[in-house]
Amino acid sequence: MRVITLLTDFGLDDWFVGTMKGVILERQPGAQIVDVSHGIPPGAIRAGAFALMAACRFFPKQSVHVAVVDPGVGGQRAAVAVQTRTCFLVGPDNGVLSWALRGEEVVAAHRIENPRLGLKTVSRTFHGRDVFAPAAAYLASGGRIHRLGPSVDTLAALPWPEPERTRLGWRGEVLYVDRFGNLITNLPETLAAGVSAPLNVHSGRRTFPVASHYGAVERGRPVAVFGSTGYLEVAICDGNASQTLRLGEGSLIELLIGS
Amino acid sequence: MRVITLLTDFGLDDWFVGTMKGVILERQPGAQIVDVSHGIPPGAIRAGAFALMAACRFFPKQSVHVAVVDPGVGGQRAAVAVQTRTCFLVGPDNGVLSWALRGEEVVAAHRIENPRLGLKTVSRTFHGRDVFAPAAAYLASGGRIHRLGPSVDTLAALPWPEPERTRLGWRGEVLYVDRFGNLITNLPETLAAGVSAPLNVHSGRRTFPVASHYGAVERGRPVAVFGSTGYLEVAICDGNASQTLRLGEGSLIELLIGS
Amino acid sequence: MRVITLLTDFGLDDWFVGTMKGVILERQPGAQIVDVSHGIPPGAIRAGAFALMAACRFFPKQSVHVAVVDPGVGGQRAAVAVQTRTCFLVGPDNGVLSWALRGEEVVAAHRIENPRLGLKTVSRTFHGRDVFAPAAAYLASGGRIHRLGPSVDTLAALPWPEPERTRLGWRGEVLYVDRFGNLITNLPETLAAGVSAPLNVHSGRRTFPVASHYGAVERGRPVAVFGSTGYLEVAICDGNASQTLRLGEGSLIELLIGS
Repeated sequence: MRVITLLTDFGLDDWFVGTMKGVILERQPGAQIVDVSHGIPPGAIRAGAFALMAACRFFPKQSVHVAVVDPGVGGQRAAVAVQTRTCFLVGPDNGVLSWALRGEEVVAAHRIENPRLGLKTVSRTFHGRDVFAPAAAYLASGGRIHRLGPSVDTLAALPWPEPERTRLGWRGEVLYVDRFGNLITNLPETLAAGVSAPLNVHSGRRTFPVASHYGAVERGRPVAVFGSTGYLEVAICDGNASQTLRLGEGSLIELLIGS
Repeated sequence: MRVITLLTDFGLDDWFVGTMKGVILERQPGAQIVDVSHGIPPGAIRAGAFALMAACRFFPKQSVHVAVVDPGVGGQRAAVAVQTRTCFLVGPDNGVLSWALRGEEVVAAHRIENPRLGLKTVSRTFHGRDVFAPAAAYLASGGRIHRLGPSVDTLAALPWPEPERTRLGWRGEVLYVDRFGNLITNLPETLAAGVSAPLNVHSGRRTFPVASHYGAVERGRPVAVFGSTGYLEVAICDGNASQTLRLGEGSLIELLIGS
Repeated sequence: MRVITLLTDFGLDDWFVGTMKGVILERQPGAQIVDVSHGIPPGAIRAGAFALMAACRFFPKQSVHVAVVDPGVGGQRAAVAVQTRTCFLVGPDNGVLSWALRGEEVVAAHRIENPRLGLKTVSRTFHGRDVFAPAAAYLASGGRIHRLGPSVDTLAALPWPEPERTRLGWRGEVLYVDRFGNLITNLPETLAAGVSAPLNVHSGRRTFPVASHYGAVERGRPVAVFGSTGYLEVAICDGNASQTLRLGEGSLIELLIGS
């Protein structure tokens, strides 16, 4: 029995996530369901894509990852399930799955359309419950992906913002602001591999060092760290970098090598 | 082994919900516990009743649904367990269970008073942990409801606000505002069954169409949709209807038929 | 198989908690994982220590309790696992475990350093995922604590603020403010054992009674109750004491006996 993970922008204040779990448990008693996050800002497909990418590689192989950030629910976008060498991904075909697929080989991708696998009545507003949860339960119990619906040739993809080479290093941007106010960028740790010169970060009007951990600077001072996602993140020791530095998603971050 | 669901106004920031689960697991190792919501506003019995009603029919039959929105904890209100043809409901007898019971046949209703089934020491402030969690674990493991305590003849009930017929259609009200700011009303989809004339909604000073899904109107425009609960809800495409239209629980909503 | 509980300051909006669960499930398929709280304010070791203490005694014996409030992650503080007669505690050695250990006999305490039990690559920013989750999975599946690393002689401890005897009773302080705005103090119920005189509480400029439950006073009035943690808490009937009385963590609370 495969693990099912859920990532949505539904929040936890209403009954939406619980209801998805009820639908899964009705189809697969004893299912192991894990919440990745339900705090993605409403409709924020990019934040959802980043969170899914950051989380899915830490789950057991063959897990079924459901991601529902779906402002177009009820409209034209397809509902899809994707199989890679390591896992299954289930969600709307609007790009939310695409960053988790970077570097993965897609084995199969199918629309979710088979009415026998969903609820008899599909609402126009809650496909998390009526389409994606039944599909996830079906896949988690060993169902064959091709039975969900017709094959999909091309999946919607969010462009991945590649860092740019500059005269002094690399220019990247903030992709995600976490609960601590840490600013996670698109600057991968591999950029610093083999570099022995000191590294600094410039953003806004401030320059500060890249260090090994948050506490390597004095309390209240900014610092950059190659963090747990494998990307550079900007933090304030014991503080909130987003608020203090007034930076957020999309803010430019320069990594300066040897200066 | 029956699924246990939990719905409370305890929030998730403290240890209250986790402690309920500890008590359940001590009595029933391996219990399958699902959170429906813990974000009901403190003491909001009506919102809790609506959420329970919206969620419980999507769980496996014979699930045990615990609902604790309990401003009178420690006082005179009874603690009760109710069995219907499809499920068990456990909570304070203050109306929070009553909307989930609409249209259901009550097979048995008992006070929860048997000290052997609860914690030895019952606090005066946390019956979720000391009374309702033990009762739920007992029922989920197949315990007989009549052993919980004496039979209850009449359960407390919140009045259900029926829509009113008007010259132009129906007048209803907002029962619940969800995380997206969607305004869920008491106007059921059955009101529109067989109506071929266009439907509109009037609220505040605005009139807007009933459509098939949120995205059927332009971004930022109001729209009404018969939603996933089976009731009409008012939304803003890619926006927050409650904030933009300044409507909330209790606001009047008119459904206009053929005008 | 032992229950694993998680208590952190990670919040639920990001993928952090979900990822810890993925790591646990990869090592121990079918693990029973319960969230105690992830809403501890960032870096608030004292609040985390109080929540852990309040929750852990309600779980099955031999549960593995993980508590990660860890502002010093990546720095000098040790990662530790502690075994008592009733449970296991896992977390940073910064005091967050210490209040749960009051009155418990420590059977063994070890640093978590064995690289074979963790992830191959340990980040400098997310030991919840890379160190504590693998250690918890190892202990929950019956692993021997001494294999985690060298024995620890002295664990970091937060001082416990003992109440002071005063001329009229006892002086304590607020240790924790819960979601309802209730102010939980360090004044234990045992102080009132055998006292038949009326009890009152003085705080700020107000004096109000100790009663049996919140609803024993009129709506909107302050009241003190020996609550579900075994300590005195100050509440407003159907209201928020922290906001109304403008009191918070550290505020002084006087318990007056017989006046």
